[in-house]
Amino acid sequence: MRFNKPHITGNELQYISKVLETYQLAGNGIFTKKCHDYFESKYNFRKCLMTTSCTDALEMAALLCEIEPGDEVIMPSFTFVSTANAFVLRGARIVFVDSRSDHPGMDEDKIESLISPKTKAIIVVHYAGVACDMEKISKLANQYNLLVVEDAAQAIDSYFVNRKGQKRALGSLGHFATFSFHQTKNLTSGEGGLLVLNDERFFERAEIIWEKGTNRSAFFKGEVDKYGWVDMGSSFLPSEITSAFLWAQLEQLNNIQNRRVSIWKAYYDGLKDWAGCNNIRLPVIPSYATNNGHMFYLVCPSFHARKCLIEFLNDNGVKAVFHYQSLHSSEFFKEKHDDRVLENSDKYSDCLLRLPFYYDVDESSIIDLLLNFNEELQNK
Amino acid sequence: MRFNKPHITGNELQYISKVLETYQLAGNGIFTKKCHDYFESKYNFRKCLMTTSCTDALEMAALLCEIEPGDEVIMPSFTFVSTANAFVLRGARIVFVDSRSDHPGMDEDKIESLISPKTKAIIVVHYAGVACDMEKISKLANQYNLLVVEDAAQAIDSYFVNRKGQKRALGSLGHFATFSFHQTKNLTSGEGGLLVLNDERFFERAEIIWEKGTNRSAFFKGEVDKYGWVDMGSSFLPSEITSAFLWAQLEQLNNIQNRRVSIWKAYYDGLKDWAGCNNIRLPVIPSYATNNGHMFYLVCPSFHARKCLIEFLNDNGVKAVFHYQSLHSSEFFKEKHDDRVLENSDKYSDCLLRLPFYYDVDESSIIDLLLNFNEELQNK
Repeated sequence: MRFNKPHITGNELQYISKVLETYQLAGNGIFTKKCHDYFESKYNFRKCLMTTSCTDALEMAALLCEIEPGDEVIMPSFTFVSTANAFVLRGARIVFVDSRSDHPGMDEDKIESLISPKTKAIIVVHYAGVACDMEKISKLANQYNLLVVEDAAQAIDSYFVNRKGQKRALGSLGHFATFSFHQTKNLTSGEGGLLVLNDERFFERAEIIWEKGTNRSAFFKGEVDKYGWVDMGSSFLPSEITSAFLWAQLEQLNNIQNRRVSIWKAYYDGLKDWAGCNNIRLPVIPSYATNNGHMFYLVCPSFHARKCLIEFLNDNGVKAVFHYQSLHSSEFFKEKHDDRVLENSDKYSDCLLRLPFYYDVDESSIIDLLLNFNEELQNK
Repeated sequence: MRFNKPHITGNELQYISKVLETYQLAGNGIFTKKCHDYFESKYNFRKCLMTTSCTDALEMAALLCEIEPGDEVIMPSFTFVSTANAFVLRGARIVFVDSRSDHPGMDEDKIESLISPKTKAIIVVHYAGVACDMEKISKLANQYNLLVVEDAAQAIDSYFVNRKGQKRALGSLGHFATFSFHQTKNLTSGEGGLLVLNDERFFERAEIIWEKGTNRSAFFKGEVDKYGWVDMGSSFLPSEITSAFLWAQLEQLNNIQNRRVSIWKAYYDGLKDWAGCNNIRLPVIPSYATNNGHMFYLVCPSFHARKCLIEFLNDNGVKAVFHYQSLHSSEFFKEKHDDRVLENSDKYSDCLLRLPFYYDVDESSIIDLLLNFNEELQNK
């Protein structure tokens, strides 16, 4: 059983075929606009710009944050390389913060002591689609006048619940947020991403950077009479083929999400007792977070225990995989990192295991298999 | 009649459908490899990496050139913003060179005086798919130890012919070359690009930068036992959906090229006398270049004459358009440019007009229309 498999909803080819009929294959056409409108309206995102990847959306955010060499940004070490690379490309010094002990997300209480006069932004990663404590982070950001970027690569259709019980979509809370539509995500276009802007100050420049540093968008809106080179920028926009593909996925979002949340619950309920007996931890969803069924992970008691479990599953035809290596101890960064030990980040690097998770996964047979592993695990 | 229209060859949806069957939608799958192999074998490119755009391929080239703040790069002013942006993003100072008087390509004889100890690279743009004099440029590059990047966005299937009469494909001559598959190009995937590497020194790092700064490629080749963050990088690779689309175009490359070259010849032969009578210049293909039928342009005697011609064509239902604004006099750059006047670049900005050019364009009716314009033009 494979670890991941993108879900094809059925209308993808039909919508791509519609794109071919219009001969508007390049970006910023009808399907791009449909996707923008959908996200803005469903999740209360102020402004959306589709990108070729979440990485590219992060690079746009780094440009919009006006990161300059020497500026510092704070982010978790337990994250994908792109979270950091986007800011490294602008010359930022990355200050890595540890994960929480109960959850791979960044430890919100360890951020403040890392803020310096050079700090420009906090990059929040909603690991596994589970919210960080955005009230704490927004308060810090306000207090120190920092920008907040939500790396919401895994967090589509997930929410933060504030103390009054009000739900707000992840991605609507930071100055910027970025989403991924890579094939491993709940919704996919193969490769693809989205930049969300929630602060009007950045709207105009974002459109310019998106359109290769030109004021082409303003030109087509009739705001300027010719367009030219006005700023830095890149070709961040995906083709209409990509957006048409995504549109077919968006139409099935509720269906996909219902199914994925039910897989998650089946794993959780089916493995709760087994995990307890085996010193394995299941995911924690804090009271201020919701569950978007992106991923189901186990935290094993040790690196060795994880290795055994991966082997057992592989031997039984089930592909289960670990996740990130702590970025602070990577070959690229270890010499640049200060001396702080990030023990939780390293723990998740060593002990976290992800179970197969996709629309038509046979979760019950995986649960049954794991329940059989009881004895073997206890002997390790 | 529209100005541009992408040519759909017929197998695009079928190949995308094959991608869906494999569930490998993200990049670096079967179709990506087919495209790499095709280009490497047909054009004698040493190593190919598909990218999400030509802009992104240029950004990879800038990273591989190890451009640092203060480094200088020399490029034509009459080019697309991305040629410059990719290097501006790395902190380079752009030194713009004028176009030739007989052709919009950069004036090879004006490069040497612009080389300083800070110069790191020459960025050659093969405008309209017509080769720059690569012998001259390579000689300079060798003499001053500079890197050469061919911005071959428009130059697929075009060649440089050396003094011995040997033909070499554009893109195979610089240390790096970049191609575009934007919908306006001979071959398209809506948005898309290609980085070519012709110097083995850069192969390993290029794969790392392409894969988000990780050694994932080496891992899958069994060269390292786990992969992690080893360098800067981004998500430069396109989805398999994009590569499958392009593959359907590549299969028809000869057919597309034959048709496009015949359109070009029809325009040239049909308009030669008319142009001569009206002080309009037709494209020049130097003896060392071939013609890939990318574009057909006219150089009008004045800005005013071009305006009249555009209006005449538009009034008769034919969309004809100008091209680049000189980058050295753009809003973004004019304060950064030295005092040199780049008169040819400005002339092409003011006077160059592109005629509709696509697979099923009705070129003869456009030629007829222009022949009727004779009298009107002479009265301007």
